[in-house]
Amino acid sequence: MTISVGIVGGTGYTGVELLRLLCQHPQVRLHVITSRSEAGQRVADIYPNLRGRLDIAFSAPDIGELCQCDVVFFATPNGIAMESAPTLVEAGVKVIDLAADFRLRDPAVWQKWYGMPHKCPDLLAEAVYGLPEVNREQIRKARVIANPGCYPTAVQLGFLPLIEQGLVDTGRLIADAKSGVSGAGRHARVDVLFSEAADSFKAYGVPGHRHLPEISQGLAAAAGGAVGLTFVPHLVPMIRGIHATLYANLKDPHGDLQALYEQRYGNEPFVDVMPAGTHPETRSVRGANLCRIAVHRPQGGDTVVVLSVIDNLVKGAAGQAVQNMNLLFGLAETTGLEQVALLP
Amino acid sequence: MTISVGIVGGTGYTGVELLRLLCQHPQVRLHVITSRSEAGQRVADIYPNLRGRLDIAFSAPDIGELCQCDVVFFATPNGIAMESAPTLVEAGVKVIDLAADFRLRDPAVWQKWYGMPHKCPDLLAEAVYGLPEVNREQIRKARVIANPGCYPTAVQLGFLPLIEQGLVDTGRLIADAKSGVSGAGRHARVDVLFSEAADSFKAYGVPGHRHLPEISQGLAAAAGGAVGLTFVPHLVPMIRGIHATLYANLKDPHGDLQALYEQRYGNEPFVDVMPAGTHPETRSVRGANLCRIAVHRPQGGDTVVVLSVIDNLVKGAAGQAVQNMNLLFGLAETTGLEQVALLP
Amino acid sequence: MTISVGIVGGTGYTGVELLRLLCQHPQVRLHVITSRSEAGQRVADIYPNLRGRLDIAFSAPDIGELCQCDVVFFATPNGIAMESAPTLVEAGVKVIDLAADFRLRDPAVWQKWYGMPHKCPDLLAEAVYGLPEVNREQIRKARVIANPGCYPTAVQLGFLPLIEQGLVDTGRLIADAKSGVSGAGRHARVDVLFSEAADSFKAYGVPGHRHLPEISQGLAAAAGGAVGLTFVPHLVPMIRGIHATLYANLKDPHGDLQALYEQRYGNEPFVDVMPAGTHPETRSVRGANLCRIAVHRPQGGDTVVVLSVIDNLVKGAAGQAVQNMNLLFGLAETTGLEQVALLP
Amino acid sequence: MTISVGIVGGTGYTGVELLRLLCQHPQVRLHVITSRSEAGQRVADIYPNLRGRLDIAFSAPDIGELCQCDVVFFATPNGIAMESAPTLVEAGVKVIDLAADFRLRDPAVWQKWYGMPHKCPDLLAEAVYGLPEVNREQIRKARVIANPGCYPTAVQLGFLPLIEQGLVDTGRLIADAKSGVSGAGRHARVDVLFSEAADSFKAYGVPGHRHLPEISQGLAAAAGGAVGLTFVPHLVPMIRGIHATLYANLKDPHGDLQALYEQRYGNEPFVDVMPAGTHPETRSVRGANLCRIAVHRPQGGDTVVVLSVIDNLVKGAAGQAVQNMNLLFGLAETTGLEQVALLP
Repeated sequence: MTISVGIVGGTGYTGVELLRLLCQHPQVRLHVITSRSEAGQRVADIYPNLRGRLDIAFSAPDIGELCQCDVVFFATPNGIAMESAPTLVEAGVKVIDLAADFRLRDPAVWQKWYGMPHKCPDLLAEAVYGLPEVNREQIRKARVIANPGCYPTAVQLGFLPLIEQGLVDTGRLIADAKSGVSGAGRHARVDVLFSEAADSFKAYGVPGHRHLPEISQGLAAAAGGAVGLTFVPHLVPMIRGIHATLYANLKDPHGDLQALYEQRYGNEPFVDVMPAGTHPETRSVRGANLCRIAVHRPQGGDTVVVLSVIDNLVKGAAGQAVQNMNLLFGLAETTGLEQVALLP
Repeated sequence: MTISVGIVGGTGYTGVELLRLLCQHPQVRLHVITSRSEAGQRVADIYPNLRGRLDIAFSAPDIGELCQCDVVFFATPNGIAMESAPTLVEAGVKVIDLAADFRLRDPAVWQKWYGMPHKCPDLLAEAVYGLPEVNREQIRKARVIANPGCYPTAVQLGFLPLIEQGLVDTGRLIADAKSGVSGAGRHARVDVLFSEAADSFKAYGVPGHRHLPEISQGLAAAAGGAVGLTFVPHLVPMIRGIHATLYANLKDPHGDLQALYEQRYGNEPFVDVMPAGTHPETRSVRGANLCRIAVHRPQGGDTVVVLSVIDNLVKGAAGQAVQNMNLLFGLAETTGLEQVALLP
Repeated sequence: MTISVGIVGGTGYTGVELLRLLCQHPQVRLHVITSRSEAGQRVADIYPNLRGRLDIAFSAPDIGELCQCDVVFFATPNGIAMESAPTLVEAGVKVIDLAADFRLRDPAVWQKWYGMPHKCPDLLAEAVYGLPEVNREQIRKARVIANPGCYPTAVQLGFLPLIEQGLVDTGRLIADAKSGVSGAGRHARVDVLFSEAADSFKAYGVPGHRHLPEISQGLAAAAGGAVGLTFVPHLVPMIRGIHATLYANLKDPHGDLQALYEQRYGNEPFVDVMPAGTHPETRSVRGANLCRIAVHRPQGGDTVVVLSVIDNLVKGAAGQAVQNMNLLFGLAETTGLEQVALLP
Repeated sequence: MTISVGIVGGTGYTGVELLRLLCQHPQVRLHVITSRSEAGQRVADIYPNLRGRLDIAFSAPDIGELCQCDVVFFATPNGIAMESAPTLVEAGVKVIDLAADFRLRDPAVWQKWYGMPHKCPDLLAEAVYGLPEVNREQIRKARVIANPGCYPTAVQLGFLPLIEQGLVDTGRLIADAKSGVSGAGRHARVDVLFSEAADSFKAYGVPGHRHLPEISQGLAAAAGGAVGLTFVPHLVPMIRGIHATLYANLKDPHGDLQALYEQRYGNEPFVDVMPAGTHPETRSVRGANLCRIAVHRPQGGDTVVVLSVIDNLVKGAAGQAVQNMNLLFGLAETTGLEQVALLP
C-alpha cells in the first residue's frame, strides 16, 4: 500500500520534521506540499538535510490537489486547518492537524484561548484527540485527528496512570515543564534569537498558556471530573526536547507505582518506563518517537514526582502525527518510526 | 582599611569567582591562596581572565600564613574547612566557608548527609548561616560563617516572605530548581562533559539531595516548626544560573503578594522584586550579586508560584561570601559587588 | 570632570553594552538616549540587567537635546550617523559612530559596499579611525571617530606587528575569522534563531563581507601599499567573542616573533600578548575590553599563525568606543574599563 | 546474508554511534561487544537511547569470541587494535580499526606521533586506508582497514579534486578546521567540561596535531609528492560536526571549479557538492553519513576556498566504518546508512 500524502504549510519545524520522517517511511508518497510564501522553492533548498532525499518543490495552496491525497497534514499556524478541513473530509481525505484547531472539544473554550470563533464546530465535535495511548481505537476510525500539543503529550502520559487509578488528589496537580527552543517555531522573533535564549533559563506564560486547557481536558477525562492543575512552562537553551516534572499528592502512599506504570505502558511501543530511581534525559529521545518516564516518591513521602521526556518535534508533533497516520491506514504502528535517538 | 585575605583551595569555580571579585574590591589585599595540587603555579596561568590583574601563585597549605590573615575563605570540598577552622578562630581570624561544613546546625544530620562525623561541633553550634537577608546582625559579629549553598539561597529567598507571614501551607512546599552546569564544579567527570550536558535537560538527585536539609532547616526557622518540602534539582545546559520555581498553597488567596515581597525586600541591596506578571531570566543576574524574584498566582487560584533567579557562582557562592565579608568588617555591604550583569 | 553623554539608537546589543559600561564609568552622566521605536520605554524594562542601575527612558530623537551633550555615540544601523554628525560637530559635540559610516576613507568604496551615497564626504575625510593602538594621537584631537568593526579590530591587531615590520608577504594574507552570534545584532531574523544557530557551525559571506575593505584599508596603511587579503567569517554557536586565525608567509623565518609582539604591545593597556605556545580562548576576554594574541610558527616553517581574540561587543564595539571617549576627554585610557572577564 | 560483528571497546562516542548504526543495519547481528571496565553492564543501561533496541551486555575481552565474528571493529584508544589484529586476521576475521593504529604507512612516522613502537609493521604495510572515495577497490579486498580520522576525512575530501588535477600550489596548503566537542571523546577531562567548552572558542594543537601527518600522507599520494600543509584545529561549542575551511593558491584562476567538484563526486553516494555560492552548515549532516562541500573563489582571485562539513562521529568515524564494512562484504554501499540529518 502506498499512502498519498499532502502537507499544508511545511516550512516550519514541525513541517521539516514531518518531511524527515515521511521521506524514510516505506509506504508513503509525498504528493504535494504547499506554502504560500515559498511557492516554487525546492524543499531541499530551504532544508539542506533533505538534499538528495526529497525532490519536490513547495506549491501554492490548491484545494483540488489536496483532495487527491489520502491524508493531509496541516503544519500551519492555528486557525488554518479549520478552514479547509470540511472540504477535505467531504472529499474523503483524512485530516491530521498538527496545530490546535481540533484539540479543545468546547468551541467556547477554544475561542477564549485562541481568540477567534471556531469555523467548523461540527467537525470539532467529531474530531479525535490523537493520543494513541488513550484513544487508539477511535483514531483508527477517525476522519479528523487533532494531533496533541507537545507539552500536553509529555504531561498527560506522565500523569495518566495515577489519575486513571484514582491514586492522587486531582485538585492540586502541578506540572513544571521545560521545553527546548524549537517549540517556539521557526519565526523571526527577537525573544528566541540565539543571543537571547542561549546560556539562560526562564519561565514564561505563568499567568496562562494555551496548553493548560488542553492538558486539563485530557486529565479531566481520565479523572471523570474537573481537575486543578498548575502548569508552568520554561524555556531551556537546547534545540529539541521537553522535560515535564509532575507533582501530585498520593491518597495512599503504599502502592507500587513502578509496577503501575510498567503495566499501564507495557504494550505501548512508544512509551518507555525507566527503571526505578532513574532520571530520563531529553537527549535519550532526541529524534525518536518516544516518551520515557520515571516515577519517584522522594523520601518515601506522599508526594509523587513523575519525570517525563519527549522530543517536542517527534512524539510531541511530527512523529505522533505519523503514528496516527499509521493507525488510520491500518499499518503497523511503528512503521517508519524506528529511528534510534541521536546520543550524544 | 585594607583587609588581608587568605583563600584555601581556590582552583575550582567558586575560587576563580572569588578571585574575580576580590581583585576588583577596593579594600582587599590577597595575602595567600593555597592549593595542594597547584602549588607553585601562578593563578593567572590557570585562569587567563586574571592575567594582568593578579600577580600571585598558589602555595602549599600553611596554617601559619593563614593565621596572619584577617579572614580566610574556604573554597574547598566538604570536610576541609572544619579541620582548620578551630585554629584560625583561635588566632582571631574570621572564617567564611563556601562549602557545607557549617551549614547544618545538628551534627547528626550533618553526618547523615555528608557521610563523616563533624570535627568541631562546638564551632558548628556557634557558626552563623550567612544569608544576610535573614541573619545580617549575627553575621556582623560572627567568627565563623557558613556561606549558604546555591540552591538554598534561591529557594529560601523565594519562599521566606510567604512563610514568615504564615500565608502558606508549610506541609506541602515544592521547589523545582534548575541549575547551570558550573554548579557541579571543575572536576574531571564524564556526566558534565560538554557532549553529555549540552543540548539536553534532566532532573537528578530526586531521591535526596544535600541541599534539601539545608533548605528545610532555613524554612523551618522562619516557620517556627518543621516544614514538608519536595526539592527536585535539574541540570540546564548553561554555564551559570539557578532558577527556582516554587509552589505553595495559600491559606487565604486574597492577600497582595506583590506588596508583601516589595516590603520584605525593599531595603535589600541584592534582592530585586520584579514587576507583577514578569518572568526573571537567569542571564539578568549573570555575573552579578543579585537575586531577582517574581511572584504569580496563576488564574487567581490558591496556588502561589514564585520565580527566583541567582547566579550560582555569585549570590549563590562567591558574591554572597564577599557580602558576608563586608558585613564582618563593617564596610558598606555593596563594596566591590556592584558589577552589572552581562547581557547578552 | 563629568562628561555629558548622548546615545542614539541604544536598543541593540552594542547599545546595551555601552550602557553597561557607561553606568559604571565614574565620570559619565547619561544625558539622553534616543530610540524612535522605544520612545517612552524605560531602558531597564527592556534590559533587566540595568534595573536599579539606570533610571532613564528612551526618548524620540531630538537633535537639540543631543547638541547639549559633550559626546554622542551612534549605536545605529549604517547610514544614520552621517545624517546628524555634521550638525553635532558644528555644535561642538564629539561624535563616536559605532556603525560603519566613517570607517572607509574613500566615499566611492563606501558607496560600493554600503549601497548608498555618503552624505558628508567632508566629515568622512576628517574622521579618525578609532583604533587607539594605531591612531592614539589623532583620536585625542578628533571631532568624529569611526569606531572600528569587530572583525577588523581582531584581525588588524593580530596582523599589524608583522606588516609594520615588513616581515610577511602582504600579497597573500588569510584571515579565517569566527564570531559569536551577537555580532548579528538584536534583529528578528530567522537565520540567527537559537534553533538555527545552536549546535552548528558555518561560514558565511565568503564571496564578500563589508569588513573586508575596512581590514584591507588598515593593513594597507601599515604596509605602505595595497595588500591581498582573503577574509572568511564564520558563525560560532556562542553569544560573544571573536577568534581570528591569521596566516601569512614569512619572508625570513628566523626572527623572534614572540619578542616582536611583546615589544609592539608592551605598553598597550588592552592588548595582551600570551606566552609562546598558548592558545587564547574567547571566554578569557568575555565582557572585558581586551585583545589577547598568541603567535605560532608551526613545525618551525615559514608560515606564521596568529591567534587573536576579543569580545565583539567590548573591544570590538562598546568598550573600544569608551576607550576612544577617554582619549577624547583626556582621561586615563582605562577609566571605567577594568572589568575582569567572566570565566567560566 | 547476516554479518556477525564484534566490537572491542564500545564505551566511547564512536562506540555508541557504531551501535546506533549497526542496530538499524538490516544485515548485521552483533555477536559480542567487549569492555574491560564495563564488563557485565548492559549496553542500554549506559546508553539509554539504545533501550529496547539492543539487548546485549559488555563482556570482558576474549579473543576466542572475537575470532568467531566475520568482522571486528576496534573503537579503542590508539595502540590496542595492533595487539589483537594479527590473531584476528590469521583467523580470517576482517578488522576495521577506528583508532589510528593502521593509518600511517611508515612505522617510524607512526612511532614519532603516537609515542610507541608499532607492534605489527607487516600488517601496517598491508592495511588499506578506508577512505572509499579514494580506495574503494582496495577496501573491498582488504583484511585490515584503517578507518580515517575525522579531520582527515573532511580535509582530504575537500582538497582532493584540486590536488588530483594539479590545479593548486601544493607547497602552501592551509586547513583551518573546527570540530565539535565529541571529537575529544567520552573521557573525564577538565578541558572539555561543559563549563569550560561552552560559550567559548579556541584553537588547539597549533604546534602539531596527530592528524597532520595523516592528512599530509593522503594529499601527498594524490599530488604524487610531498605537500606543505598548515593545519590548525579549533574547538567549537557544539556536540557533533567538523567544518574544514581550506585555502590554496590556484595556478590558473580560469578553471570551472564547480564543475570539477561535481564531476569528481558525481557518483559518490556520501559526498554532496553544494550549489555555487553556498555555505554548508554542520547541522545539515548531523547524524548522517555525508560530506557536503562548497567551493568558492572570493572576488574572483587566485585563492580558492573550500568549505567541507561532516559529522565527526558518522562520516568521520562510525558511519565511514560501516561504509567500509559494506564494501568488504559486497553489500550496497549505502546499506544501513540512509539516515536523514537531524535539523533543527
